[in-house]
Formats: sequence, C-alpha cells, structure tokens
Amino acid sequence: MRNKPWAIDYLESNNHIVDVNNTYSKRIKEFFSEDRPVHIEVGTGMGTFVTTLAQNNPDINYVGIEIDKNVMIRVTEKVVELGLTNVRLLLLDANKLMEYFNEGEIDKVYLNFSDPWPKTRHAKRRLTHKNFLTSYKQLLKEGSLVEFKTDNRGLFEFSLMSMNAFGMKFENLNLDVHDDEPKENIRTEYEEKFSQRGHKIYWIQASF
Amino acid sequence: MRNKPWAIDYLESNNHIVDVNNTYSKRIKEFFSEDRPVHIEVGTGMGTFVTTLAQNNPDINYVGIEIDKNVMIRVTEKVVELGLTNVRLLLLDANKLMEYFNEGEIDKVYLNFSDPWPKTRHAKRRLTHKNFLTSYKQLLKEGSLVEFKTDNRGLFEFSLMSMNAFGMKFENLNLDVHDDEPKENIRTEYEEKFSQRGHKIYWIQASF
Ligand SMILES: C[S@@+](CC[C@H](N)C(=O)[O-])C[C@H]1O[C@@H](n2cnc3c(N)ncnc32)[C@H](O)[C@@H]1O
Ligand SMILES: C[S@@+](CC[C@H](N)C(=O)[O-])C[C@H]1O[C@@H](n2cnc3c(N)ncnc32)[C@H](O)[C@@H]1O
Repeated sequence: MRNKPWAIDYLESNNHIVDVNNTYSKRIKEFFSEDRPVHIEVGTGMGTFVTTLAQNNPDINYVGIEIDKNVMIRVTEKVVELGLTNVRLLLLDANKLMEYFNEGEIDKVYLNFSDPWPKTRHAKRRLTHKNFLTSYKQLLKEGSLVEFKTDNRGLFEFSLMSMNAFGMKFENLNLDVHDDEPKENIRTEYEEKFSQRGHKIYWIQASF
Repeated sequence: MRNKPWAIDYLESNNHIVDVNNTYSKRIKEFFSEDRPVHIEVGTGMGTFVTTLAQNNPDINYVGIEIDKNVMIRVTEKVVELGLTNVRLLLLDANKLMEYFNEGEIDKVYLNFSDPWPKTRHAKRRLTHKNFLTSYKQLLKEGSLVEFKTDNRGLFEFSLMSMNAFGMKFENLNLDVHDDEPKENIRTEYEEKFSQRGHKIYWIQASF
C-alpha cells in the first residue's frame, strides 16, 4: 500500500467512524449510536469482511482494528459508502488492545489472514501467540469465541498448538474451507487472492 | 484383500510372532526375548511402517495390532523375512485393547491412516474417538505420546477436536508432511498410495 501523506487528515475528517487518537479508549460503547454486542476484527485490512458482516448482522456493533493508516483509508471509504452505523474503526496496534478496551466488554474476536511472522524470533508478533490470547481472554466475556482464518500453513499449525496449550476449547475446525464452502463464509481480500493461487484456507473457532 | 482360507493356519504356525488366541494377554512382556519399552501400532495393515521402525530402533519392542487375518499374513511374512525379534503381532480388535494389556505398560501408540468412518453415526468406531483415547490413556505411561497420521481431512479435523476436548497436549503438528518431508518419516502403504493421488498428509503427536 503506497504511503498517502493525506491519510491522517482524511481519517480525522471521518472521526465519527475512525478513532485515530484513542478518543474512545475505555468508552467504546459511546462511539456507537446503539448499545449492542461488540465484535472486533484485529488486522482488518481493506475491510470487505467486516463491512459485509456488519450488513448481514445489523444487531451487532463491529470494531475494525488496523495499524496501517493507508490501509485504513480503504475501509473507511467502504463504511462511508455503505452508510453503516454499526461499524467503527480504530487506528491502533493490536498490542494496545488491553489499554483501549475494558475487561469483558467484547463478545467475539475475528482474526483473518494475520501476518504470519515465519521467523521463530518473531513468534511473539503472531496474533495467536499466547500473549495475545491472554489479552483476548481478558477482553472477552466468559465462553466467547475467537475465530481465525488463514491460508498460511505454518501460522495455522502454530495457532492450533498455541490455542491448545492455552487450554482453549476447539468449537469448529476446517482444513479446506473452499472445498464445499459454507454459504455464510465471507471471503476477505487476502482469502480471494490466495485461494486463486490454489492455497487451502484453514479456519478455527475456539473458546476460552 | 482377498479371503485366504489358510490364513489362521498360517498365522498359528507362526505363533512365535503372531498371537491369534490372546495367549499373551496380560503378559505381553513374555512374548519378547528382551525387556524393552513397548510401542504399539493399532491397525498395522501390511506392516511397512512397524517393520521399518523396528529395524531403526532395536531397543524398542513393537506390537502391531490388526483385526484382519488376511492382512496379517503380509506383515507376518515381513517379520519372518527380516528376522525381526522386536516385533510381535496381535490378531485383535482395537476395542479389546483394555482387556489385552495392563494399565501403564505401553510407552507409545501409533495410528496410521485409520479407517475414517465418515458417517456421524459411526463416530465411535474412529480410533481417535474419546472412548479410544480413554483406553490409550490408561494403557500408556504418564506423559506418553499418541502419534497419528492420515490423509483423510474429515478424520483429522475430528481427531484434533477430539484430542483437544479430551485435554491432550499437542506436541507437534504438520498439515503437509510431504512438503519438506522429515527424513525420519516412514511412509506406510496407504501414505504412498494417497500421496501419489495428490492428497496432503496430516500428522500430530499429542500427549496425555
Ligand atoms: C495480511 S493482512 C490481512 C488483511 C485482511 N484481514 C484480509 O484478510 O484481507 C494483515 C493486516 O493486519 C494489519 N496488522 C498487522 N499487524 C497489526 C497489529 N499489530 N495491529 C493491528 N493491525 C495489524 C496489517 O496492517 C494488515 O492490514
Ligand atoms: C486404512 S488401513 C491402514 C493400514 C496401514 N496403517 C497403512 O497406513 O497403510 C486400516 C487398517 O486398520 C485395520 N483396522 C480397522 N479397524 C480395526 C480395529 N478395530 N482393530 C484393529 N485393526 C483395525 C484394518 O483391518 C486395516 O488393515
């Protein structure tokens, strides 16, 4: 994604949709017009997934979290165009989740095609590392789900090991989502791209 | 495998290698010339896996367990030809493991390309169903491994769910064994066949 010098200005001009400066930290509910269950997606990318989900589920409030301001422009544009009132976006590093949210206020976490960080010395940056699982557990209500999808075999193997070691319960598992694709599956940008290259898509739903 | 009317006669004539009538039930150690750790393979098939493993590990006693007498002929022939003293075979249904062995006397369980039993109503027959895991746990020494390999995606998904729900710890996981195949991997007959058809080979090592 090319750097856009006007990115922050653009995002701030849409501060009813994107929180650039942690304005709603510890009070996410005030960012939405209605009080509904809150589901978050970490590493939203260009946002096809979260905006489609939001259209299909008007009774849920979705928070898209993305660290890259240039990428964030694209998902902001989608939310504006679709006129969605149940999606809000945070320009935030996933490492700051615990500082932003209150404990137990989230109902579901989505991770889609997270960066794989294949080198062992970068394992802590993987969004399914036990340090991140510890955060999700604290943010989520008791028994809530983490849903994770990727084409990256190494990251998926790591994630199964990590979730198992953490004591998470596997609720659902699919090692080839596009073979007999469930009609409720929403393809993300990366999913479309890597599926076309013949990669298998892996998926797991697990609870704490 | 075609029915061979002489199968039982042949196996009984090799009763120093195959136990057809539960002769060594509750006293497996007496079946071997030396007292060594005992590893079992359930559903041995034609026996390339267990006989190769036995050649590579002369300090382990291997027990191949197979329910089909016609298939058992093939693995018996291999043990005879190779003159292996650290492989013994049981003509036994896996459902009878608890009756045959004593608690805590096994050091490792191998399952390779077990019958998938795809219908939900047959789930209890899958060798990774929780009822079988309960048996393995009792037969195995504390902290010992179950090692499972298959090309069958549905069975592998089920097995990951089942082992996770049972509280087993995943020690190792590979969702494509033949991509960068570990040199210690021993291909079974089914593995060779299904790999040639382009199936991915899945593998897990898990402990209780
Ligand atoms: C490989 S892309 C996947 C995008 C999208 N989920 C999809 O499936 O098409 C990963 C995204 O996660 C974002 N990301 C990476 N690390 C992050 C972090 N620590 N916090 C928030 N977002 C992050 C990246 O900027 C990128 O947009
Ligand atoms: C699909 S074959 C795989 C054979 C071999 N492990 C391989 O990978 O080539 C499954 C084998 O398990 C045996 N088997 C199935 N159910 C069994 C049971 N309940 N007890 C013992 N063996 C069984 C079958 O007779 C068959 O030989």
